[in-house]
Amino acid sequence: MTGRKFTLNVPTNLGFTTKDIAKAVQRGDVIIVIDVLRCSSTIVTALANAADAVIPTKTVKEARILHKKHPEFILAGERRGIKPKGFDLGNSPLEFSPQKVKGRHIILTTTSGTKAIILSKNAKYVFTGAFLNAEATAKAALNLAQQEKIGISLISAGTNGRFSLEDFICVGAIVESFPADNLEHSDAILAALLAFQQTRKSLDRVIQSGHHARYLISQGFEEDVKFCSQLNIFKIVPFLKGEIIVPLNGSLLFY
Amino acid sequence: MTGRKFTLNVPTNLGFTTKDIAKAVQRGDVIIVIDVLRCSSTIVTALANAADAVIPTKTVKEARILHKKHPEFILAGERRGIKPKGFDLGNSPLEFSPQKVKGRHIILTTTSGTKAIILSKNAKYVFTGAFLNAEATAKAALNLAQQEKIGISLISAGTNGRFSLEDFICVGAIVESFPADNLEHSDAILAALLAFQQTRKSLDRVIQSGHHARYLISQGFEEDVKFCSQLNIFKIVPFLKGEIIVPLNGSLLFY
Repeated sequence: MTGRKFTLNVPTNLGFTTKDIAKAVQRGDVIIVIDVLRCSSTIVTALANAADAVIPTKTVKEARILHKKHPEFILAGERRGIKPKGFDLGNSPLEFSPQKVKGRHIILTTTSGTKAIILSKNAKYVFTGAFLNAEATAKAALNLAQQEKIGISLISAGTNGRFSLEDFICVGAIVESFPADNLEHSDAILAALLAFQQTRKSLDRVIQSGHHARYLISQGFEEDVKFCSQLNIFKIVPFLKGEIIVPLNGSLLFY
Repeated sequence: MTGRKFTLNVPTNLGFTTKDIAKAVQRGDVIIVIDVLRCSSTIVTALANAADAVIPTKTVKEARILHKKHPEFILAGERRGIKPKGFDLGNSPLEFSPQKVKGRHIILTTTSGTKAIILSKNAKYVFTGAFLNAEATAKAALNLAQQEKIGISLISAGTNGRFSLEDFICVGAIVESFPADNLEHSDAILAALLAFQQTRKSLDRVIQSGHHARYLISQGFEEDVKFCSQLNIFKIVPFLKGEIIVPLNGSLLFY
């Protein structure tokens, strides 16, 4: 009985590094890439505002080359938080309004988030998670994990490989929204859950105390930080289909 | 003014890996090695029960060789939680009673904790922290950091390099006890603080949910796990003096 019960549990893991992503892919886990400030939040917002797709690229150069082939696409992203020269949009979710992105493809390159998504691309299911869509992401991921009898790996993409406060707390927010209790949490997941539970009433304030939030605020992006700290305002779950990110809604059926 | 204020702040960092220890040594930080289950707790308890010194060794072999030279020393430690063949004591703090350890030197080798202490040995100040002595450790470390204008690195020695729930929460317990507010916390430290604040009323229960606690309980060490979850029952701060660990009390004067 114990053996059987164990196999029905869904193991959850938290990864911080490139190596952790490789291990998650190898295990065949559902992968949730989290980079709250701001890549994940931007992708969620763009798709919620009816962009057709987001195409992540690793480098600014690759983004430019793709844009030359497809000048009809929006060219967006950041390095050190700032929009590269000649780009249409930066990495501020507030820029990705319905007026600008509806029905459009967006090429996106960011310091950490898009790289983590691309590193995950050999996994069958790669989602993008943020506070903005924590509950929707949790439900979709658990649904698939239970259906396919696989685990869930949450990847904190962070900033330049550093431990990220906002990503860690977001992991807790997502994990708390898993609509089941047959989960086998790793120690890091349990810790993230505790950090979120302690924070939920003051998400805004706590997130603003983090290292990258303070950097962004110093660069004039305070409104972005506030926007990205909102919990469950969107039901969109960005899903990596081949090399492009589309809303999950129905798209798995055609995978 | 801002510049000066910044230099008076004490930067705090949380490290998980061998690399993080090397960086902390290089920065010249006060280092606090934490391995709640059970190495740190055992060292604190042994010294609180009037052992003269604890001598950490990396391998079981080194421990045996040292014991051959000094058969009057107590030979103690574990691998996979279990006492190696021929050892006097395991790694259970409850074994290190005053009757057994008073006035004695103890050779100790454990899977993670003693290794992390030895890796830190080129730092000027290396302490051993646990729940048992969280407040005393915090006070001693901050005192030195302020005096010497250096940072503090808390090292979660974990189990085989894994993220450890109990060590992470213990970091939060120590950080919360720093008797000052001019600290510049890293994101990981802020997260550990949140996790501790959420846990403090149910330390026992939360620690028991961790991976290594469950392993220890399965091996019959439930009482150890409970013992190690007690906050501030000792005022001893173990301090690495050359290659041996002694109580801090006064010993820095002769360093």
